[in-house]
Amino acid sequence: MNGADALITTLVANEVTACFANPGTSEMQFVAALDGVPAMRPVLCQFEGVATGAADGYGRIAGKPACTLLHLGPGYGNGLANLHNARRAFTPIINVVGDHATYHRQYDAPLNSDIPTIVKANSIWVRSADSPETVASITAEAVAASFGPPGGPVSLILPADSAWLPASGDPVMAQKPVRPAPSGAAVEAAAKAIRAAKNPVVLIGGQACLAEGVAQAARLQAVGVTVYSDTFIARTPRGAGSFAPKRMQYFGEQALAELAGVDLMVYAGTTMPVAFFAYPNRPSVLIPEGCETLTLVERAEDSVAGLAALADALRAPKQGPVQPLALPDVAPTGKLTAYTVGVSIARHAPEGAIFCDDAVTSGAGIAAAAATARPHDVLALTGGAIGIGLPLAIGAAVAAPDRKVLSLNGDGSAMYTIQALWTMARENLDITVVVFANYTYRILNIEMQRTGAGDAGPSARKLLELGDPNIDFVAVARGLGLPAVSCSTAEAFETAFASAMVQRGPMFIEAKI
Amino acid sequence: MNGADALITTLVANEVTACFANPGTSEMQFVAALDGVPAMRPVLCQFEGVATGAADGYGRIAGKPACTLLHLGPGYGNGLANLHNARRAFTPIINVVGDHATYHRQYDAPLNSDIPTIVKANSIWVRSADSPETVASITAEAVAASFGPPGGPVSLILPADSAWLPASGDPVMAQKPVRPAPSGAAVEAAAKAIRAAKNPVVLIGGQACLAEGVAQAARLQAVGVTVYSDTFIARTPRGAGSFAPKRMQYFGEQALAELAGVDLMVYAGTTMPVAFFAYPNRPSVLIPEGCETLTLVERAEDSVAGLAALADALRAPKQGPVQPLALPDVAPTGKLTAYTVGVSIARHAPEGAIFCDDAVTSGAGIAAAAATARPHDVLALTGGAIGIGLPLAIGAAVAAPDRKVLSLNGDGSAMYTIQALWTMARENLDITVVVFANYTYRILNIEMQRTGAGDAGPSARKLLELGDPNIDFVAVARGLGLPAVSCSTAEAFETAFASAMVQRGPMFIEAKI
Repeated sequence: MNGADALITTLVANEVTACFANPGTSEMQFVAALDGVPAMRPVLCQFEGVATGAADGYGRIAGKPACTLLHLGPGYGNGLANLHNARRAFTPIINVVGDHATYHRQYDAPLNSDIPTIVKANSIWVRSADSPETVASITAEAVAASFGPPGGPVSLILPADSAWLPASGDPVMAQKPVRPAPSGAAVEAAAKAIRAAKNPVVLIGGQACLAEGVAQAARLQAVGVTVYSDTFIARTPRGAGSFAPKRMQYFGEQALAELAGVDLMVYAGTTMPVAFFAYPNRPSVLIPEGCETLTLVERAEDSVAGLAALADALRAPKQGPVQPLALPDVAPTGKLTAYTVGVSIARHAPEGAIFCDDAVTSGAGIAAAAATARPHDVLALTGGAIGIGLPLAIGAAVAAPDRKVLSLNGDGSAMYTIQALWTMARENLDITVVVFANYTYRILNIEMQRTGAGDAGPSARKLLELGDPNIDFVAVARGLGLPAVSCSTAEAFETAFASAMVQRGPMFIEAKI
Repeated sequence: MNGADALITTLVANEVTACFANPGTSEMQFVAALDGVPAMRPVLCQFEGVATGAADGYGRIAGKPACTLLHLGPGYGNGLANLHNARRAFTPIINVVGDHATYHRQYDAPLNSDIPTIVKANSIWVRSADSPETVASITAEAVAASFGPPGGPVSLILPADSAWLPASGDPVMAQKPVRPAPSGAAVEAAAKAIRAAKNPVVLIGGQACLAEGVAQAARLQAVGVTVYSDTFIARTPRGAGSFAPKRMQYFGEQALAELAGVDLMVYAGTTMPVAFFAYPNRPSVLIPEGCETLTLVERAEDSVAGLAALADALRAPKQGPVQPLALPDVAPTGKLTAYTVGVSIARHAPEGAIFCDDAVTSGAGIAAAAATARPHDVLALTGGAIGIGLPLAIGAAVAAPDRKVLSLNGDGSAMYTIQALWTMARENLDITVVVFANYTYRILNIEMQRTGAGDAGPSARKLLELGDPNIDFVAVARGLGLPAVSCSTAEAFETAFASAMVQRGPMFIEAKI
């Protein structure tokens, strides 16, 4: 047994059983060690941003970490943007970052870099296993750390000699941390403030947006407390049978207009709402003038228990309102738009589907239609780094092989991690990919106005438009191994999507909107 | 005039006239400001790793920096791996990293991250322009800093409010630093040591590998000093009319075997040679036992002057040996291999071509054949982070629109930044792309043995092989807007490549080896 064997054995003993990898020379022992531990599933990604986004999707659905295998500082760098998103989603991930042998670092060979600094901003825990004997215990530490609470990506640096030298001993079990219960005082204070308020809202985020949390939040709605959720949520149930909280609006002035008159905002599993971006003469903080705020449950605490205790204190009924099942009964026709796509999706997405949403300006059409669709889960872009919709779907499909996964992407977003399509083909994952092809960064055309930058001239347009040439996504998807179809009408999309929903395996649909 | 105008005006005043960009909301003012300064050429890249690799290629050919435009920490992260390569190439690059408005940072909005930490490892200078009045002077500082010496990527963080608020004043001119001359004592010491040595070598790197440096190094060869170059060089001339130094072997034990008997190693523009990776029981330092070492020219100093002074001191002739023009006169036939591809390239690449080499295991075949081809320049993978061959070609083609650019890539390498093909199509760049499709990370199959990891079993093979499915690169390239052809025989490649060399504009060739 060497250090690499010790690492994988301890990971598997702690139920870390999926590895999204793009290895290099310094990771060869890890790769070889996989053959001795068949419980660990290796999934090759032809770019590390796919691997890290997949690990995020896996963690959100499985509720436990996957590992990644990344090649030194540059390999981690390629995965950094999706680890930023994972940090904002509080998703447990074990990044195994291969490094030069400990004695080789001093020579500053071409691939050498300052790995601890590169990983720092997006890791909630970092440690280098500089001797083979420490690998197992450090690995168990990494697993425990990834759970937080509230959880996030950790970075375990594995020097090549720690991987290839002998290591002995049994796998080490991680102590999975427990979320602390919120304080009784916080519950009492919230209940008291709500009773005194004219127009109270509760803002939920993180763990409070999982099924159990949303069910408790619904009870508050039943006693007149308006429930909002954060704008971008790691995972939340949607559709028939779930409570649908309002969503904090993306644009700050719209959020504030909607919140006008609110005199109390209580946070459960989240913190103060702020604008996604600043704009000249527009608000950063999304709390109406004179509104009191207080925290019911910190992010690290048990939001479900906190919301339940508050609902009990307010003598709320045991169950709150839930969405009815109401599928659009007429197939959309005519021009293909984000809204007709949403109708087709709502009509045909099966129960238990997982929606991975990186659709940017096209996402609203889907959300509206899916609100009363069959029960499903939604995974959103938590950190604003586009290019997560395809990788996230890979991870979700590996974590839940019996559920249909939808990957919904803007064309600009899809191009960031287009290599993901190949992994879907190789692993034969049950994913239907939709790319909304409008050949523009549409959101930026909107933002250009909002930031006061004025109208785009010829130079600016070169950076906002994605045409000239228009990408043929069907050709790209087929080249990467997926069956693919392009749709230009609502009828064509309806047919293609309905067909994809009753088949298994990967399918690619270009929606020309 | 606002801060964004001030930034671009100062960049252009300092001859920074190309911008490889992938903007977001926080960069809208920069985008708008481009319309006012038509001398700045905006080039959209649908992924930041393309933008940074292109800036590297541009800097290596133009000898001056391009700028990039990157979207906060995640945008920089996507470009990090190719900035690692640029740092190792000592290429001047001005990374403009957009950030939240200064007053918005405190709220830790979803896209917020610790940008100074994320950029630190791969920036030789970092500064945030936190007020619009400082933008012009900080920009001039950034330009100067990017030149080093020896130069490298710098990071100028531009908060959104510094971009949109009014700024006044003229553009600020940068003081471009001058490389110091090497010390006379170092020259004398090197000359003395060489005269006393039985088997002296000079190892050249960096600036010493540019045309003027290589010409001076050739004079040393003429008086019996064996000249070696670093294994991976940012830019060097090759083919007829240039001196061809030996190249330090990639594998350490092969390098040491070749250097056996060498009793003096003199460094010019580089430092101690070390193995690319460590392996069990193999050397890290590539200096033979008992060999004396000394430094003639530090990396930051003027290598051309140093080599010339040493050659003078050794009474070397004014000119050393150069390669003859010797083109293979028979077209290759039969099975397509890296070597037949090399023969076709040597036969048809025009004078002044720029070879961007990310071909990994297929590169040797080209180097051997091209040694006596028409004069050309070679840009190599300096930092070991694959995925640079396509972006590098974009930058080279923008910097030198009258030269034919070849982009030579392994299939694994090409997939890292495949989005680059679209930018080649949009900008109609005169680039011929060759992808060697062997459907495997071949180098890793070799490294697996060398690291003592043993034979690959089924799990390991899943991470080393790129087949199942084989990517159809022609479909992908056409989907991204390029004319493309696949070749399976030496004859087919010869025909396709010869045709590409006499046309202008982008062309994609899949070489199934």
